[in-house]
Amino acid sequence: MLKRWLVGDPLKSTQARHERLSKAIALAIFSSNAISSVAYGTEEILLVLVLAGAAAVAWSIPVSLAILFLVLVLTISYRQIIYEYPEGGGAYVVAKTNLGERPALVAAAALMIDYVLTVAVSVAAGVAAVTSAIPDLFAHREALGLAAIIFMVIMNLRGVRESGKFFAIPTYFAIGALGLLVVAGTMKSFFSAPVSPSADSVTPDNAMESLTLFLILRSFAAGCSAVTGMEVISNGVKAFRHPESKNAATTMIWMSAILASLFMGVSWMAYHYGILPKADETIMSQLARLTFGTGAIYYAIQIATMMLLVLAANSAFAGFPHLASILARDGFMPHQMATFGDRLVFSNGIIILGFFACLLLVIFKGDTHSLIPLYAIGVFVSFTLSQSGMVKRWLVKKGPHWRKKLIVNSIGAVTTGVATIIIASTKFVQGAWIVFVLVAVLILIFQGIRSHYKAVAEQITLDRRGARPPLPRRNIVIIPISGLNRAVVRAVDFARSRPGEIRAVYVDLDPEESAKVKIQWAQWGGGINLIALASPYRSVLGSLIEYIEEILEKEPDTWVTVVIPEILPARWWQNILHNQRAFMLKAALLFKERVILIDVPFHLTR
Amino acid sequence: MLKRWLVGDPLKSTQARHERLSKAIALAIFSSNAISSVAYGTEEILLVLVLAGAAAVAWSIPVSLAILFLVLVLTISYRQIIYEYPEGGGAYVVAKTNLGERPALVAAAALMIDYVLTVAVSVAAGVAAVTSAIPDLFAHREALGLAAIIFMVIMNLRGVRESGKFFAIPTYFAIGALGLLVVAGTMKSFFSAPVSPSADSVTPDNAMESLTLFLILRSFAAGCSAVTGMEVISNGVKAFRHPESKNAATTMIWMSAILASLFMGVSWMAYHYGILPKADETIMSQLARLTFGTGAIYYAIQIATMMLLVLAANSAFAGFPHLASILARDGFMPHQMATFGDRLVFSNGIIILGFFACLLLVIFKGDTHSLIPLYAIGVFVSFTLSQSGMVKRWLVKKGPHWRKKLIVNSIGAVTTGVATIIIASTKFVQGAWIVFVLVAVLILIFQGIRSHYKAVAEQITLDRRGARPPLPRRNIVIIPISGLNRAVVRAVDFARSRPGEIRAVYVDLDPEESAKVKIQWAQWGGGINLIALASPYRSVLGSLIEYIEEILEKEPDTWVTVVIPEILPARWWQNILHNQRAFMLKAALLFKERVILIDVPFHLTR
Repeated sequence: MLKRWLVGDPLKSTQARHERLSKAIALAIFSSNAISSVAYGTEEILLVLVLAGAAAVAWSIPVSLAILFLVLVLTISYRQIIYEYPEGGGAYVVAKTNLGERPALVAAAALMIDYVLTVAVSVAAGVAAVTSAIPDLFAHREALGLAAIIFMVIMNLRGVRESGKFFAIPTYFAIGALGLLVVAGTMKSFFSAPVSPSADSVTPDNAMESLTLFLILRSFAAGCSAVTGMEVISNGVKAFRHPESKNAATTMIWMSAILASLFMGVSWMAYHYGILPKADETIMSQLARLTFGTGAIYYAIQIATMMLLVLAANSAFAGFPHLASILARDGFMPHQMATFGDRLVFSNGIIILGFFACLLLVIFKGDTHSLIPLYAIGVFVSFTLSQSGMVKRWLVKKGPHWRKKLIVNSIGAVTTGVATIIIASTKFVQGAWIVFVLVAVLILIFQGIRSHYKAVAEQITLDRRGARPPLPRRNIVIIPISGLNRAVVRAVDFARSRPGEIRAVYVDLDPEESAKVKIQWAQWGGGINLIALASPYRSVLGSLIEYIEEILEKEPDTWVTVVIPEILPARWWQNILHNQRAFMLKAALLFKERVILIDVPFHLTR
Repeated sequence: MLKRWLVGDPLKSTQARHERLSKAIALAIFSSNAISSVAYGTEEILLVLVLAGAAAVAWSIPVSLAILFLVLVLTISYRQIIYEYPEGGGAYVVAKTNLGERPALVAAAALMIDYVLTVAVSVAAGVAAVTSAIPDLFAHREALGLAAIIFMVIMNLRGVRESGKFFAIPTYFAIGALGLLVVAGTMKSFFSAPVSPSADSVTPDNAMESLTLFLILRSFAAGCSAVTGMEVISNGVKAFRHPESKNAATTMIWMSAILASLFMGVSWMAYHYGILPKADETIMSQLARLTFGTGAIYYAIQIATMMLLVLAANSAFAGFPHLASILARDGFMPHQMATFGDRLVFSNGIIILGFFACLLLVIFKGDTHSLIPLYAIGVFVSFTLSQSGMVKRWLVKKGPHWRKKLIVNSIGAVTTGVATIIIASTKFVQGAWIVFVLVAVLILIFQGIRSHYKAVAEQITLDRRGARPPLPRRNIVIIPISGLNRAVVRAVDFARSRPGEIRAVYVDLDPEESAKVKIQWAQWGGGINLIALASPYRSVLGSLIEYIEEILEKEPDTWVTVVIPEILPARWWQNILHNQRAFMLKAALLFKERVILIDVPFHLTR
């Protein structure tokens, strides 16, 4: 009942077709991930540069331009993937069809990790936006983040379209608010002189590191977190209305344009006003305060940022279960990941994603900056594999304009490949190594699952020539009893509902009790033979099992069906007062070939 | 395997007779509880008196004499119970046969709580003996206590006699060591002048409380902890060799004599040498240091004290499961508490006692003094109920010498009754109230369990006139399948091993797949009818349940047996990759009348 209220009524499968998204709603769902990166992209660049002293932050502009170039390359490259893979062209699919299984698994593992990180990073950054405005909440970062994730899990279990509508309004509100900040702030900057960052605001005058190429590359690597999420649309082409590819490609351009202008605007303003990162206030918050003062507009911008970031996590809730279901269909994930939930979404995947994101948030104590070094690397690995896959595709498949397409994707592959190497080498010790380890572990899990399913298939597949495995033809039914009551009579009657051999078995512990049982059995046993077993060790269980083992040994061509009268209490906690013996018996017999257990429940009403 | 190694091989029930204890071993098992109280009895008396300043501690001698009187009264009274109840005369049994159910339940609840407290207090005090000698271990009190309890649980699961032998040597070693201390210390005291306690050693000169009658009564109440455990022998008469009562009565005298002399010796020495309680060193430790110096003998005495106390807890491990089994036989505890474990002891009771003792130790952080206020009150409630029960018994039953016996038990009842009132009133706010609350809660649980068993008995008892409840006579077997494999063929063959109506049911999700299944079924279905169900909601589960409900409704005189082909993986963790659907189906059908579920497992080997 609670479930229904939280996730809504089940949908008919014929409704699945209508669960398609308009461009406007798709933009809200799929772009929040990419656009929200604006909230931390510039900040991460500055956090690295500032290590070389206040003067080094001027490098933020060239670094931002390099990232802008990345956005451009990715947009053009991914549009080609969208047209080529209208069923959804995630890195896994592209790598699998063009590069083979192993690169595909690398892409899948990298993407899975990144989905989890997207949720964790976005929620952490969203919470940072709130705590910048309301410093009292800083101590409750973790709890706020967890609450946000749980809220999203529930929303997503309600189904894609409803969540889409639910999320569209705040996404557009957020884009509007951030747009206002960038436009107003940039305009204002034309009328004010540039400010040099006050050297004492974060770093001491004597910089901790000197401005090396490595440091600049590190700041570029950190800034690459700004382009994460650009692949989301290409994964979800199928969710668009007809014509899917065209609509998705158009949406992609809108998304990139918004991302690019917001990101460059923020980087420009931060540079112009000489703003540096603070531990307890985000760059965005500082910019908003500077532009509008600490008033209603400031708070609106903080709320908008927070909402956008929390919604960004939502794109992972669409992507992760989808990827998991594709992997499940290929046998790399448990089959049930491929099952539609009630609401035509992949419930299992949503819950698993939510769980691991919560775990990550707790481990890293809800801090964006400590999560960032793990982030981006996975995305860029999958970018590179996608683009390389496309390069291979054009070389093999050719087709109209293949040379032009080949050049586009080659540029994509080289650019993202170089970025991947930069990110991996500059972030390795800070946490990127964890991602590599996790990718390896995930691949082992994928392969382990698939080889298990293969082994199972080999074991259960029927013989082609129609040879029937030799199975027992007889069936001896045994009813173990410890006395007579309605539950036993019920079990006896059930057993008698089909003809064949039936034996009731009684373990003799006390002669007096035995005599009573025998008399009662004459009346109630329905003519079934009652066998009394001796029990030297006072072990009812031991004697029964011994008896059953004897039959199994003597009669190789027979099933032994054990019918267990079981009292089913009216309330669950009453179970502690019943059936321990039945439970032990079942546990002992569970792994015996040719033994089949049947509980005949007798339902108590009070 | 681990279980066998830890608790030994199972014993035949004919061996039960031989599991009887000689007097010497019985003294070791049953007396350690009472005698070990020496380790903290005097200290608890002094801890109260010292509140009224150093001079007030002289009152420890009259208070100790009052407790000596209690020991005397209890010894004589309990010998009468031992003779009258050779089957074991715990307070519950005596109260039940003479006073009725409600007083009996009060006694049972009080005793159960006290068994748990015995374990917790004894272990805490034992650990205090160790940390007095080795102050470095003071910080690890809790862990030491928990380790000791777990050790005892394992020992007791090995069975009574073996544990007895195991525990006899250290018990006698401890009695010897404490005896040596008392004899040597007392002798030495005759050759030295009495020492006044140095006023600054614990309390300030200006005493915190004045020496009122209430304070003296409080010190008496605290000292009553010294007589706890005296009832243990009367509970365990049955464990003695023939003649049980006589042997038990003799053992009782020995126990009381040892307890009385050790207790008075310690009280005298503490008074004579002016020893006051310290936070981190016990009185016993101080006395041992004073008498023998901090040498080998001192350490031997500390080890002996510790062992005796830990072994004292052991008497509870004999008593608690026994009481629980008696209660279980009367329907006040779950039936399985009455079941013999492999080693002819009451395994369930031992484990439960160990668990709650650990819990208590953790809650009270392994500190003896904070546990003491809860202690004793339960014992004295049961003392009073036992003695009152005996008084009633002699009045009703009479018999030879009944007047003499009546007087003895009357003195016992009045003395313990007065002590109970003193303990309850002086310790009420410090924790005795918790015991009263727990007694009430336990009584409610006892009664709840009994009324449940009564309700069950009413529901399952067979009609005396032999009227058979109207049960279904037909039996339709349904095999839900989602495809064909060896597991399904196995289930089909099992179903066909008994004649009768069988239907295979298939949920149609995809026409192509369905066609394939139908072709395969023709080959493998063994002539069984295959029914294809439509599923508008894509819910395999929903369609199956609907179909079964339809049959149940149309055919009121039939069982529906659902045979579920289940793949049983070779390793437990592989279960996550299988059978989720089977599990859901079973969960949905479990509570339907007339539906019987059968798993036909197909065992995978890898």
